[in-house]
Amino acid sequence: QGTRDHAPAQTALRDRLLSAVVSCFKRHGAAAIDTPVLELRETLMGKYGEDTKLIYELQDQGGELLALRYDLTVPFARYLAMNKITNIKRYHIAKVYRRDNPAMTRGRYREFYQCDFDIAGQFDPMIPDAECLKIVHEILSDLQLGDFLIKVNDRRILNGVFAVCGVPESKFIPACSTVDKLDKVPWEEVRSEMVGERGLSPEAADRIGEYVQLHGGLDLIERLLQDPKLSQNKLAKEGLGDMKLLFEYLTLFGITGKISFDLSLARGLDYYTGVIFEAVLLQQENEHVEEAVSVGSVAGGGRYDGLVGMFDPKGRKVPCVGVSIGIERIFSILEQRLEASGEKLRTTETQVLVATPQKHLLPARLKLISELWDAGIKAEMLYKKDPKLLKQLQYCEDTGIPLAAIVGEQELADRVVKLRDVATREEVRM
Amino acid sequence: QGTRDHAPAQTALRDRLLSAVVSCFKRHGAAAIDTPVLELRETLMGKYGEDTKLIYELQDQGGELLALRYDLTVPFARYLAMNKITNIKRYHIAKVYRRDNPAMTRGRYREFYQCDFDIAGQFDPMIPDAECLKIVHEILSDLQLGDFLIKVNDRRILNGVFAVCGVPESKFIPACSTVDKLDKVPWEEVRSEMVGERGLSPEAADRIGEYVQLHGGLDLIERLLQDPKLSQNKLAKEGLGDMKLLFEYLTLFGITGKISFDLSLARGLDYYTGVIFEAVLLQQENEHVEEAVSVGSVAGGGRYDGLVGMFDPKGRKVPCVGVSIGIERIFSILEQRLEASGEKLRTTETQVLVATPQKHLLPARLKLISELWDAGIKAEMLYKKDPKLLKQLQYCEDTGIPLAAIVGEQELADRVVKLRDVATREEVRM
Repeated sequence: QGTRDHAPAQTALRDRLLSAVVSCFKRHGAAAIDTPVLELRETLMGKYGEDTKLIYELQDQGGELLALRYDLTVPFARYLAMNKITNIKRYHIAKVYRRDNPAMTRGRYREFYQCDFDIAGQFDPMIPDAECLKIVHEILSDLQLGDFLIKVNDRRILNGVFAVCGVPESKFIPACSTVDKLDKVPWEEVRSEMVGERGLSPEAADRIGEYVQLHGGLDLIERLLQDPKLSQNKLAKEGLGDMKLLFEYLTLFGITGKISFDLSLARGLDYYTGVIFEAVLLQQENEHVEEAVSVGSVAGGGRYDGLVGMFDPKGRKVPCVGVSIGIERIFSILEQRLEASGEKLRTTETQVLVATPQKHLLPARLKLISELWDAGIKAEMLYKKDPKLLKQLQYCEDTGIPLAAIVGEQELADRVVKLRDVATREEVRM
Repeated sequence: QGTRDHAPAQTALRDRLLSAVVSCFKRHGAAAIDTPVLELRETLMGKYGEDTKLIYELQDQGGELLALRYDLTVPFARYLAMNKITNIKRYHIAKVYRRDNPAMTRGRYREFYQCDFDIAGQFDPMIPDAECLKIVHEILSDLQLGDFLIKVNDRRILNGVFAVCGVPESKFIPACSTVDKLDKVPWEEVRSEMVGERGLSPEAADRIGEYVQLHGGLDLIERLLQDPKLSQNKLAKEGLGDMKLLFEYLTLFGITGKISFDLSLARGLDYYTGVIFEAVLLQQENEHVEEAVSVGSVAGGGRYDGLVGMFDPKGRKVPCVGVSIGIERIFSILEQRLEASGEKLRTTETQVLVATPQKHLLPARLKLISELWDAGIKAEMLYKKDPKLLKQLQYCEDTGIPLAAIVGEQELADRVVKLRDVATREEVRM
């Protein structure tokens, strides 16, 4: 349940998608690493908050207690700490596992690919953070998914807001989770959860509401920097200062048109410490699909400066910022779009079919195809001793093979091959 | 235990290796598929004989009982049966899991990659089988691993030998496992295991010994076809007839020089029903490595005509033949070879570093790098506001970036960029 086989056509589409993402990561100078699907159970515990219950655990068959990785970020942090790496730019594309309620039509699975790009190291503020946003912008533009918006916030700003609104520090994390729902439900519901389940005072909730419903650009940052309460809070001031710097860099990148500073963005995971962001598609541009896939967020990430230190015996920190591309959701959209277009994706790259028009010519076919393979040419033949020529040409049409190399008795006698263009039926002897 | 992280240099080497394998699979017209790492436990049970105990099982956390895949062949057969596919040529490169004793220096892990190519369908005899051997030959030649030998046998010949030597059918499988050890231990030891643990009569063992120590080519096949006992056995006769055909096809492919018909080859897995084969490296050609890695088999496979039927409710069979490339062992060899050569593999593909020679020029760098990225050029910059030019050029040398695009005050004023070749120090303004 919640997993799926990829048939050849799906694999071909996914490979095309992944290669666009990898190109972008390589364009930004990232190296690839790989870590095991299995991690020690203790490595994963206490990193995902309430979602820890969604981790797949392996049976105790003797030896270490193991679990399947839940994301690629915690294994990355474990890898950095274990190898004392303090400076790296890497990408990692691999499957992760979550015992979640699957919603397969919306691209939500229990086994799914993550495509992560992260920059680890002590650098001048917001330069790597800005690059992560540039990457999201490049990938979503390249893939032509229609209009999108990248929401940006900072955990320090959010915590500053909670502080100046009178929320006790112990309730920052639950308040954060509640705020995060603002993209799906109206403020009234969020407010009642704050007051009801989370136990905030109605006054605190109202004050929070005034902040977290704000979104804008540089102008909003400037206004909040002048805000009499927020400007008194050290965390918020730091966060707003960095947000201003970030917007300066994003302006130089020319991408602020699709960026929104949105105080309601909170993101679920515990480990974020600074900038956070999330990209959403604004509409389904494909009119052919009657029920458009509702996909929500297609990329997200942020800064997590404390995670590596959790794995270091001396607690040495390595600041990190990274982005994860929600490839499965994007795949769902591209799959539906392809289906609607009726376009048939080739699943193989075969350039030529080696064919014979008469009987008893299998040896000639085997000899020719072997020469082609050895010359690096992608070639196939039917696995029959004496196939009909029509069947062989039909196979080319069915699978999109553009050329047929035909050796018959005449060609053998003349020591030539007849090369046929399957589409135009043009033939040349060579 | 038995797993490992791949650092960037290892990942780069592995990607290079895998891409050589994928090229070959695509050259032979295969499509890619993907199946989940998780399979239902019942899917894997009863498919691997004694090795079933090596399967990783997941904890029962509610829902289905799951296990990690042990190979890619059983999931492939399950996929064919589930989707009623009777005809496909596919490859699949993915990790599999075995709770085995790891021997990491020899490239034996608990989590490791398999690279499988299989042809499923009802075809004329030995044509797909011959192609599998051609593929092994191409890959091992391409990778320049030194001299190699591909041993070939047929389960039907082996069972025929057992039958004519007076082994009861119930003991065919254990006799097979014992014979398989002949490549590691002398005949006397194999004989004593047959008589002792396996309970064969000394006479039967001696008679088996006369056959299974034979190896050769077409001449040996012809001789055995005339063998007074074997030629009376239906299975053996069929197997030998097909073996003769196989050698004819391999002769047309021009690869019999590296093929040996070897009656001691048995292969461990239960599911083989016809041709089996295994490739071994004959020697370590790398003289720089003092203790050469002992790698044993680097590829193997065979025909399994009954496996798909085990997953079909009506038991409908789909004949299959396939090959698995032992990528981890090959990787160990290449890794040691690279280490010995002192060659440094680049882990990124960055073409140009965007650099500035004076202070306060971060905006110029951000603007230029953004243009380069948008033009599809692989570019990096240091994540510092005011890095020294020397440091920037040093970074190019350390990471192998060939070019530096330098924008200083003069270049900004002249509206040009200075492009520097890092190796030759040549500069052009453009």
